[in-house]
Amino acid sequence: MIKLALFGAGRIGHIHGHNVAAHPQAELVALHDPYQANADSLSAALGCKSMTAAEIFADPAIDGILVCSATDTHADLIEQAVAAGKHVFCEKPIDLSLARVQQVLAKINSSDITSMVAFNRRFDPDFARLQQSIAAGDIGRVEMVSIISKDPSPPPIDYIKVSGGLFRDMTIHDFDMARFLLGEEVAQVTAQASCQVDPAIGAAGDVDTALVTLRTATGKLAQISNSRRASFGYDQRFEVHGSQGMLTAGNINEHSITSYTDQGVNAAKPMHFFLERYKQAYKAELDAFIGALKGTEVTLPSMYDGLQALRLAEAAILSVAQGKTIQLNTIGD
Amino acid sequence: MIKLALFGAGRIGHIHGHNVAAHPQAELVALHDPYQANADSLSAALGCKSMTAAEIFADPAIDGILVCSATDTHADLIEQAVAAGKHVFCEKPIDLSLARVQQVLAKINSSDITSMVAFNRRFDPDFARLQQSIAAGDIGRVEMVSIISKDPSPPPIDYIKVSGGLFRDMTIHDFDMARFLLGEEVAQVTAQASCQVDPAIGAAGDVDTALVTLRTATGKLAQISNSRRASFGYDQRFEVHGSQGMLTAGNINEHSITSYTDQGVNAAKPMHFFLERYKQAYKAELDAFIGALKGTEVTLPSMYDGLQALRLAEAAILSVAQGKTIQLNTIGD
Amino acid sequence: MIKLALFGAGRIGHIHGHNVAAHPQAELVALHDPYQANADSLSAALGCKSMTAAEIFADPAIDGILVCSATDTHADLIEQAVAAGKHVFCEKPIDLSLARVQQVLAKINSSDITSMVAFNRRFDPDFARLQQSIAAGDIGRVEMVSIISKDPSPPPIDYIKVSGGLFRDMTIHDFDMARFLLGEEVAQVTAQASCQVDPAIGAAGDVDTALVTLRTATGKLAQISNSRRASFGYDQRFEVHGSQGMLTAGNINEHSITSYTDQGVNAAKPMHFFLERYKQAYKAELDAFIGALKGTEVTLPSMYDGLQALRLAEAAILSVAQGKTIQLNTIGD
Amino acid sequence: MIKLALFGAGRIGHIHGHNVAAHPQAELVALHDPYQANADSLSAALGCKSMTAAEIFADPAIDGILVCSATDTHADLIEQAVAAGKHVFCEKPIDLSLARVQQVLAKINSSDITSMVAFNRRFDPDFARLQQSIAAGDIGRVEMVSIISKDPSPPPIDYIKVSGGLFRDMTIHDFDMARFLLGEEVAQVTAQASCQVDPAIGAAGDVDTALVTLRTATGKLAQISNSRRASFGYDQRFEVHGSQGMLTAGNINEHSITSYTDQGVNAAKPMHFFLERYKQAYKAELDAFIGALKGTEVTLPSMYDGLQALRLAEAAILSVAQGKTIQLNTIGD
Repeated sequence: MIKLALFGAGRIGHIHGHNVAAHPQAELVALHDPYQANADSLSAALGCKSMTAAEIFADPAIDGILVCSATDTHADLIEQAVAAGKHVFCEKPIDLSLARVQQVLAKINSSDITSMVAFNRRFDPDFARLQQSIAAGDIGRVEMVSIISKDPSPPPIDYIKVSGGLFRDMTIHDFDMARFLLGEEVAQVTAQASCQVDPAIGAAGDVDTALVTLRTATGKLAQISNSRRASFGYDQRFEVHGSQGMLTAGNINEHSITSYTDQGVNAAKPMHFFLERYKQAYKAELDAFIGALKGTEVTLPSMYDGLQALRLAEAAILSVAQGKTIQLNTIGD
Repeated sequence: MIKLALFGAGRIGHIHGHNVAAHPQAELVALHDPYQANADSLSAALGCKSMTAAEIFADPAIDGILVCSATDTHADLIEQAVAAGKHVFCEKPIDLSLARVQQVLAKINSSDITSMVAFNRRFDPDFARLQQSIAAGDIGRVEMVSIISKDPSPPPIDYIKVSGGLFRDMTIHDFDMARFLLGEEVAQVTAQASCQVDPAIGAAGDVDTALVTLRTATGKLAQISNSRRASFGYDQRFEVHGSQGMLTAGNINEHSITSYTDQGVNAAKPMHFFLERYKQAYKAELDAFIGALKGTEVTLPSMYDGLQALRLAEAAILSVAQGKTIQLNTIGD
Repeated sequence: MIKLALFGAGRIGHIHGHNVAAHPQAELVALHDPYQANADSLSAALGCKSMTAAEIFADPAIDGILVCSATDTHADLIEQAVAAGKHVFCEKPIDLSLARVQQVLAKINSSDITSMVAFNRRFDPDFARLQQSIAAGDIGRVEMVSIISKDPSPPPIDYIKVSGGLFRDMTIHDFDMARFLLGEEVAQVTAQASCQVDPAIGAAGDVDTALVTLRTATGKLAQISNSRRASFGYDQRFEVHGSQGMLTAGNINEHSITSYTDQGVNAAKPMHFFLERYKQAYKAELDAFIGALKGTEVTLPSMYDGLQALRLAEAAILSVAQGKTIQLNTIGD
Repeated sequence: MIKLALFGAGRIGHIHGHNVAAHPQAELVALHDPYQANADSLSAALGCKSMTAAEIFADPAIDGILVCSATDTHADLIEQAVAAGKHVFCEKPIDLSLARVQQVLAKINSSDITSMVAFNRRFDPDFARLQQSIAAGDIGRVEMVSIISKDPSPPPIDYIKVSGGLFRDMTIHDFDMARFLLGEEVAQVTAQASCQVDPAIGAAGDVDTALVTLRTATGKLAQISNSRRASFGYDQRFEVHGSQGMLTAGNINEHSITSYTDQGVNAAKPMHFFLERYKQAYKAELDAFIGALKGTEVTLPSMYDGLQALRLAEAAILSVAQGKTIQLNTIGD
């Protein structure tokens, strides 16, 4: 059994904690949360101990940690894990500072630990199948990728303020998926953005609506379309246009009932909540991590993938500010 | 915790056994299977004891039993459960003999136990929603129900021979769903059937393709379309036509990727395997049973529902044999 | 140019009259309608003469006639056309009396004229493609055909009273399509029917909701589902189940706009009006008739097809009355 | 009757010529084409005279002209029509030179003639409905427009060389539709483009794949996705995201048959050929022009709309060249 410890007993910590607890090849031995009430409640529910961070890193029985705590703790925890020789599964983003992410990455690279950034969408069964179909050449050479990614409604303004902004917080998933589906590194980034959903978001210095265009060295193009609000549900779709055809991955709907009345033909909305929508993806990414620790040949989204997604976010921010296309190699590598 | 014992360690026993084991309010304390190797293997996997039937019925700690054993054992086990005061969850059919089902029903009715027949399709989330929408009057008065129900491929001939025939074995689910969706008892049954899929099925005295028409006293009509073989997957669809519109429930597909090439637009097939297709329904029906034992207000498909579905099967068999419409009240009640 | 004369300046006469007028290889030279005002108005619009029936049959320049007049005039007109050596395009039904149809057919068979019954659905581009795909073996051997055929709303009661009833008036199209798609003659007919849409229809001695089951000598099955009212539009769908797959032909919708709001996902209704829905079919069937007169190799729905559809209607009526399966060979051939 | 003359007997001239000929309120009296054989053939087919340009402009019976000749003749013909007091229906583009378009527009504006640029997509029934639904507020305030516009295959290289390039030749339709659907003028243009389909296109100095981002003064965003090759057909789709929902307009498919086999679920491809796809749009735009000449209140895409689309194309070209966002007010107005 792989023995894991969890940092963070919040919403995403609950997800991963329960998935570890239900996993036949893993055991959640401990968790840590600075709010003791949260820690006590979740550790009771999961039947594991509540420990301090120091205790976790000192415990030789613990193989790896799941970093689900506040963003500003991620980098430190990864460094401590490297020092303690523990494997790391880390929620995105690694850090909001590019320089800090590069420091962490350097330490990871000089260590032997297994690490991954939790880009869960790569593990959604449909999106994984999409990437496999592309890689198998089903539509020839990929030429354009289109990513539609809209949340049902904006997060609270207090969250917006500490989120690092739309590109670092929300688009970061789409940047990773664009790289995953393009199969090449992005060379140029161009972005347009505005505040159309809620003026309070603009007042907080952020945007809520954005279009990003990516270009690789060989001329492949990708576009990302973001909004913080899609009243009809969580809108997550992909279109990949290749030399021999197109592949699409659609939304997952709430149900399969269709109603035909004199008002029209009415079908279900897309699922509304990301925890529900990506339920299988959360399980699959954890399963991949555990598999890797057990020696299975599996490709994990790496800390370098986390860095690249953040560099794309930085480039998009710069592109909006300067009204021009940004060469990615001008963004700290 | 509700304490349950399982009879039958075959395919369907595995499903229900694992669902009990994972249920937060229930515990699988024992199982029984006449093949000791099966019993040992599943009891080890589920962490429960292997007991004789007598031990199970004698154990005061056991609240109820799940009858997943061979069809010809169902009636006896239900009667023993009634005698022992244990609640019963029984796989369909109760028995292939109508008279035997009526005996069992009489014993159930004079007892205090909670019982249900495992008509799992009523618990499929989409089909349950369909019935709720009808009951809510979303399409006015129901006038016609259409049930398409086809298996991917026929079962082995050895199974066909002991199955009781297409109507008792396969259509029985559709008979139950027709009653569930019509919201009225069926008064008349007319059926046509033939052997088109495999001559060996005909040689075994059975049919593999059938169309059944049902009629209620108020003139509502229903049709059931069955085939033992749909090469593209497990085809399970409903259409309900009412005075103010139509509701449909479609198949659940293997994935949501669509491919557009010069060969056409290609989407996923319906799921192929019933255990996968009805995974959620199996969980939900067990959850309903456990809920009922804990006092939750919930409607369970009853032993009477099991009887009615079997009477419809008998009427269909008679209709095919005699080439005429059968009044249900001429079939033993 | 093929020179044609039209009998009947009503709704369907307008359709065919305009289609002849617009056809590059045909000319509408005359029309006749007992209501002179109708005749004058349509002949003016189409730029043709208004003639008496006798004048039409006596005019050697006229190659053929289109019979779009009242049903009870069809048989006489066909016989006169045979006598005059004019080709005949006849709206369904040939007559409501089976004996009368057989007389007409005998005369047709002993003549050299080209004739067709206007079963327009065979000429709908999608349905024609469906039949071609079946004939090409795309789904192996046909085993079951399902026809859903519902009108948006019932015709006036005065029409119902002279229509010959649901089976002769509405289902007759479906009987023809069943034969077209089964590729074999029907041997047995079983039907159930009720009055659920409007009690006035029942009071007029007719039904408004019906399920018909057909069976061929080799065991192929077909079902027809009829309602005089589908509030959401004109519902015309086909499903053909074969040994190697299934083909479906869906409704044609009013538009392709889909709306996604918090109320759900809303798409267009099926087209509401049959003249609009089958606009292309009306053109194509006339084009086939004109093509046949010009010597093109083309299969026309024959007077015999008209007879067979009527025999199926008679059998369905008998099946409802007697509550039993009717052997088609007991219905006058 | 509105009397019209046609310039240009090529592919698009054939379309409009036949549509005029079939229009109940218009008459095609003459046509002109510099290739006499083309002129003779089409005038014979349409039953009109072949005239010189001078004869057409001198003929007082002619109300208006349809400019379907080579692009470099459009501006001159419009100016001659203004001088002769004839109304003008002009195929896009007015001219490839912005300055020349502005000259023409000035003359139009100081005249009384009715004129329109043939942006046919505005008249596609589905796209017109889409715009009406937006204007009716069905999805609240428009925030993002997405236009997918791909041709089945690239035009010949000889055409590419004189086309003015992808943005002026192909995207120009999408620029117009973006303005039509945004309901506001575009303020900024950003574009990325590459040559991925055929190196010969790049060798000719053009691109074949492009992503364009538009932004209005109020922050609304639009994206256009172009490819010169979509092997599966003519791909023309719209998505409009608003504060209260989303509207989509999909492709029109070749047929409505769906096949279910063990190979998957196969539906029809989008129509392949733009003349077929936009058949109704061509009729509707001509009908609007004729209606306007008869005094009907109707909004025609104006010469100013033609100018604005061309300015957007110029801005996109500049954006690609300079790698930056272009303010539209820096492009000659």
